[in-house]
Amino acid sequence: MEKINKLAIIGGTHGNEFTGIYLVKKFEKFPELITRKNFETKTLLANPQGFELVKRYIDTDLNRCFKVENLENNINLNYEESRAKFINQILGPKGNPKFDFLLDLHSTTANMGLTIILVNHHPFNLKIAAYLSSVEPNVKVYSFFNPGEENSFLNSICKRGFSIEVGPIAQGILQANLFDKTEKLVQISLDYIEHFNEGKLHHINADLVIYKHLKFVDYPKTKNGEIVAMIHPQLQGKDYQKLSPGDPMFLTFDNQTIYYQEENPVWPVFINEAAYYEKGIAMCLTTQESITV
Amino acid sequence: MEKINKLAIIGGTHGNEFTGIYLVKKFEKFPELITRKNFETKTLLANPQGFELVKRYIDTDLNRCFKVENLENNINLNYEESRAKFINQILGPKGNPKFDFLLDLHSTTANMGLTIILVNHHPFNLKIAAYLSSVEPNVKVYSFFNPGEENSFLNSICKRGFSIEVGPIAQGILQANLFDKTEKLVQISLDYIEHFNEGKLHHINADLVIYKHLKFVDYPKTKNGEIVAMIHPQLQGKDYQKLSPGDPMFLTFDNQTIYYQEENPVWPVFINEAAYYEKGIAMCLTTQESITV
Repeated sequence: MEKINKLAIIGGTHGNEFTGIYLVKKFEKFPELITRKNFETKTLLANPQGFELVKRYIDTDLNRCFKVENLENNINLNYEESRAKFINQILGPKGNPKFDFLLDLHSTTANMGLTIILVNHHPFNLKIAAYLSSVEPNVKVYSFFNPGEENSFLNSICKRGFSIEVGPIAQGILQANLFDKTEKLVQISLDYIEHFNEGKLHHINADLVIYKHLKFVDYPKTKNGEIVAMIHPQLQGKDYQKLSPGDPMFLTFDNQTIYYQEENPVWPVFINEAAYYEKGIAMCLTTQESITV
Repeated sequence: MEKINKLAIIGGTHGNEFTGIYLVKKFEKFPELITRKNFETKTLLANPQGFELVKRYIDTDLNRCFKVENLENNINLNYEESRAKFINQILGPKGNPKFDFLLDLHSTTANMGLTIILVNHHPFNLKIAAYLSSVEPNVKVYSFFNPGEENSFLNSICKRGFSIEVGPIAQGILQANLFDKTEKLVQISLDYIEHFNEGKLHHINADLVIYKHLKFVDYPKTKNGEIVAMIHPQLQGKDYQKLSPGDPMFLTFDNQTIYYQEENPVWPVFINEAAYYEKGIAMCLTTQESITV
């Protein structure tokens, strides 16, 4: 497998996710933290106007702007569409990128701890994910893509790489403990890549548990689109825990419980993510699979 | 003391604080929940445009727009200034209001549990605060005003009333347990007022612990105004806990601890409130006082 020569650490793809933004600022102030001997590391603040206004985005979600069709469009671009093209010029172009590995830093209001989000199952991504979840057992791996469908995330510019989600944390704040955990995961990732480039790869032959994206679930709503229920208190904060048929899922404002009624158990993630209310997503359902890498 | 004839429950003074907003929507759908036999209850969604865009405010913080000088101004009003005048016409006018009691519902990313915020020490406010914190011992009382200085909060329209803060909760989400706790506190408040109007006031002759606002503390910053430190992990989430000289307060991005260095202990609140980053407030320091009401 080809060595990694150029790696980018991206923060602030969403302007109100401070953990990644201030980590990028820290790395820019103390570049020795991300310097490794056999590859180059670049940092990028992806959505500076979003950060300035402490908004996820100005016009549209930047992390849904990376389909080739969008990147090739030149007409009437809004702020994030322009940024996506700019980022694609610097790091990409998508499919034949100048950079070999992208690490995109995010945060969530859901209780997802430290999550690695994959947009493909490239063997290198699976190996590094397996390594990271073996040395940091709290790290979970979420495959957030539909096979055969083009992915629109920033990470899709490049075959190798992943995003890190950390939570639960409100938008627009820093929490020292989560900041520190995210930084450590970045450091371990860089060390792993340095060893990979040296041919001294840690021997991994372990089972990797992957939570594979199955589908989105919206909040129960009226015909007019008004939310009529909240995440059930028994499900709140239970990301990555098994949800079985008959388990409580939502609680309506007049205290009726809505149960999970499908045939098979699922493992919900992104439960109660603030940014997903407007997308009509109360949670993402996944299946849990174990693979050997 | 005069009876309370008209009471208003206000939600969404900040458009991204969903707990109060959806409580108001619930009360509008099920008015029997807030109907009491000897006073009238009105609900109000204070900042509908802010809610629509899931923003604290469109142009300026509505909950800082209620000084008489601002309310009397008619020139070049922005959205929240107009809303403040409108709200003052409905509930006020400030100083001689049509409504006798205002209950303004807020949420915070700080770990403030259920907090009653007072903008004055009117005897009725102290009595109801003492009652609520006696039946719900987790309820804290925060006096968020400087004596002798005009208050600019919505609650300042009216002598009687308070706001409820609930947290920790991210902006733009609902959490069923905090929603339920807030609703219960509203219910108990309405019951108390109903009994007061009947002359059957619960006998309270207890010590009330009040956290009195002392001053704001900003994040450590560079000359250019860039944050260089986070709330120290030992202080994060420790709202209402004693901070003594020598205790850790901030942690810089290069892992230096900044200690609290003043002479007297304080009790910080609003630690790491998302909306206060732009105001230059990392926390509010209070003194703890016990008074008999």
